[in-house]
Amino acid sequence: MLLAVDWGTTSLRGALLAADGRVLAEHAAPRGLLSIEAGGWAAAFEAEFGAWRRAHPTVVCLLAGMVGSRQGWAEAPYCPGPAGLADLADRLLWLQPGRLAIVPGVSVENDGLPDVMRGEEVQVFGALELAGLSDATVVLPGTHSKWVRVRGGRICELATHMTGECYALLRHQSILSRTLPPDDSAWLPDAFDRGVDQALQPGGLLHHLFSVRTLALFERQSPAEGASHLSGLLIGEELHAAAPAAGSDVIVVGHPALAARYQRALARCGVKARTVGAEAAWRGLAALAGQLGQLCQLGRPGRPGRPAATSTLAR
Amino acid sequence: MLLAVDWGTTSLRGALLAADGRVLAEHAAPRGLLSIEAGGWAAAFEAEFGAWRRAHPTVVCLLAGMVGSRQGWAEAPYCPGPAGLADLADRLLWLQPGRLAIVPGVSVENDGLPDVMRGEEVQVFGALELAGLSDATVVLPGTHSKWVRVRGGRICELATHMTGECYALLRHQSILSRTLPPDDSAWLPDAFDRGVDQALQPGGLLHHLFSVRTLALFERQSPAEGASHLSGLLIGEELHAAAPAAGSDVIVVGHPALAARYQRALARCGVKARTVGAEAAWRGLAALAGQLGQLCQLGRPGRPGRPAATSTLAR
Repeated sequence: MLLAVDWGTTSLRGALLAADGRVLAEHAAPRGLLSIEAGGWAAAFEAEFGAWRRAHPTVVCLLAGMVGSRQGWAEAPYCPGPAGLADLADRLLWLQPGRLAIVPGVSVENDGLPDVMRGEEVQVFGALELAGLSDATVVLPGTHSKWVRVRGGRICELATHMTGECYALLRHQSILSRTLPPDDSAWLPDAFDRGVDQALQPGGLLHHLFSVRTLALFERQSPAEGASHLSGLLIGEELHAAAPAAGSDVIVVGHPALAARYQRALARCGVKARTVGAEAAWRGLAALAGQLGQLCQLGRPGRPGRPAATSTLAR
Repeated sequence: MLLAVDWGTTSLRGALLAADGRVLAEHAAPRGLLSIEAGGWAAAFEAEFGAWRRAHPTVVCLLAGMVGSRQGWAEAPYCPGPAGLADLADRLLWLQPGRLAIVPGVSVENDGLPDVMRGEEVQVFGALELAGLSDATVVLPGTHSKWVRVRGGRICELATHMTGECYALLRHQSILSRTLPPDDSAWLPDAFDRGVDQALQPGGLLHHLFSVRTLALFERQSPAEGASHLSGLLIGEELHAAAPAAGSDVIVVGHPALAARYQRALARCGVKARTVGAEAAWRGLAALAGQLGQLCQLGRPGRPGRPAATSTLAR
C-alpha cells in the first residue's frame, strides 16, 4: 500500500493506493508551503494523514512537490537530468527509512542555463504510464508551465514558461486590466483563437499584448473578448517558443479546463495532443514505489537510466 | 513665440521657445492626467503657465500628450497614419482659435490591428529634425516603448511594446522579485548584456524569464546581476521582435540612461543608433508651429503628406 502526496506551494493532496494502483481514498487541504511555519511540517503531515498511517501501519509514504524545497520540510537536492524513475528512486530523501520519503525534483541544464521542477516529474512519469509511451513531450500548464521532453523513459529536456503568472499580472495589475472584466467567467473561444494565431505571427509578445488595449480603445473587442484574447496571446506565445513538431506525441497534464485550452491551441499549430488529469500524480508515485519494491527484491540500489521492467505496486 | 507643453499621464513639462527655436524658459510639475480631476484642466493650465501667457500675450500654445486623450482636457481624435507634420497641423484641436491647441496622437493599422501614440509623435518629428533625416526608425523607450518607422517625413508604421510596464511588474510583483534587490541602483552591464544575448536566442520570453530565478536558486547570479539580467531580457526581447535591419538609421529618444541601454543593446544586434534627449519634444512642437506659420502665410489649410519646406519658428 502507498500513501502518495503531492504537496505544493499553496495546497496538498494525498491518495491511499492499493498494491494494484487503485485509489482507495483521497484527501486535499489548503495547507501548502506558504501556510506552514518552519518546523511545522511533521505536525501538519500528522494532522492530515496520521489517521491513515495508523490504520495502515506498513504504508509507504512518498511526498512530491515543494515539500522538498529549501523552504519545505527538508531539502531534497534536485536529481540532475537525464533522469528516469530509477534515478528518482535512488535519490529519495528518506525521513523515516523505508517508510517516509521526499521525492527530489529534477534539474536540467539547457544551453548553459539551469531549469527545475518539483512535483511535475512524478506527473510526467504517470502520464507516460497512462499513455503507454516512453518517448513524448509532456506539457504541464500552470503558473509556471513545464515542457518536458522524455526519451527512453528519461527526462532529457525541460523548459519552464512563466505563462500563468504573467497572465495573472497582466490581467489584474497592468494597464490592460482597465478594459477587462472583473473575472474570467466568460471564456470566448473565438477571441482565444485570435490571440493564439496572433502570437504565432512575428511582432513579439510585448507588442502583441498592447493590442488588447488598442482593440478596446477603438471598441473593436468587448471586455470579455479581451480576457480570452490575452489568454490566447500568452498560451500562443508559449507554444510558439516551445514549437513542438507537428505529428509529435504531446501529452497535456492538468486541470481539464486548462488542459483543453492547451489542446485547442496545440491543434492550431497542427499538433494533436492527448490530455491527462490529476490522476497522473498518483500513477507516477505508484510507478516510483514500484521501483522501490523492485529494488528491495533485487536487494541493491537502482542504477540511473534503468527503467523498471515490472512494478509490483503500480500494475 | 511658442509655449510648448508635453502633458502626460503623471507629469507635465513646458518650454517657452523663441521664434528661432531657442528655449527661453522651462517648467515641469508632477501634475498629469492621473492627478487632475475632470473639469480641472483649464485651471491647472492657468496655474502652471498663466504667468508666461500674461507676460507674452501673443504666444501660441501647443499641448501634446495624454492631455488629448478621452480622459484629458478634450479628446483630440488620433490622426491616422501615414502622418506627417502637415497632417498633425491640419488636425489640431483648437481650444482657443489661433492661440491654444491640443496636438492629436497618431494611430496606425498594422496587419488589421490598431496601434496608437500620444505625445511621442512630436518627439519623433523633433528627433528627425535634430538628426537631419526624413527616413528613419525612431525608438522611444519607456513604460510603453514605441517603435516608429518614418518614410519621407511621415509616420508609416508604429509598434508599441509593453517593455517598461512588464519590467516593473516582473521586477516587483512576480516570483522573480524574491531574489532581486529592493532597488535598481546597481546596474551591471555584463548581466544586462547576457540578458540581451539570451533574448535574441530561441526559447521565448516567458521561458527566458524563469532563468532569472533558477540562476539565483543555484547561486550562479547575484541579486543585483538578476535585476540587470531581467532588464536585458526584456529590452532584448523588444529588439528581437522589432528586428531593425543592421545598418539602418535608428534614433533612440529618451532619458539619457535608458537611451544608453537601448543603444548598447542595439549595438549587440549590429545596429549603430544615435540618441536624442528631451529636447526632441520642443524641437517637434516648434516644427509643428512652423507649419502653422506657413499655413497662415499661405492662407490655406495644409494637405496631408506635404512636409513643410520652411519653418519660420523652428529654424
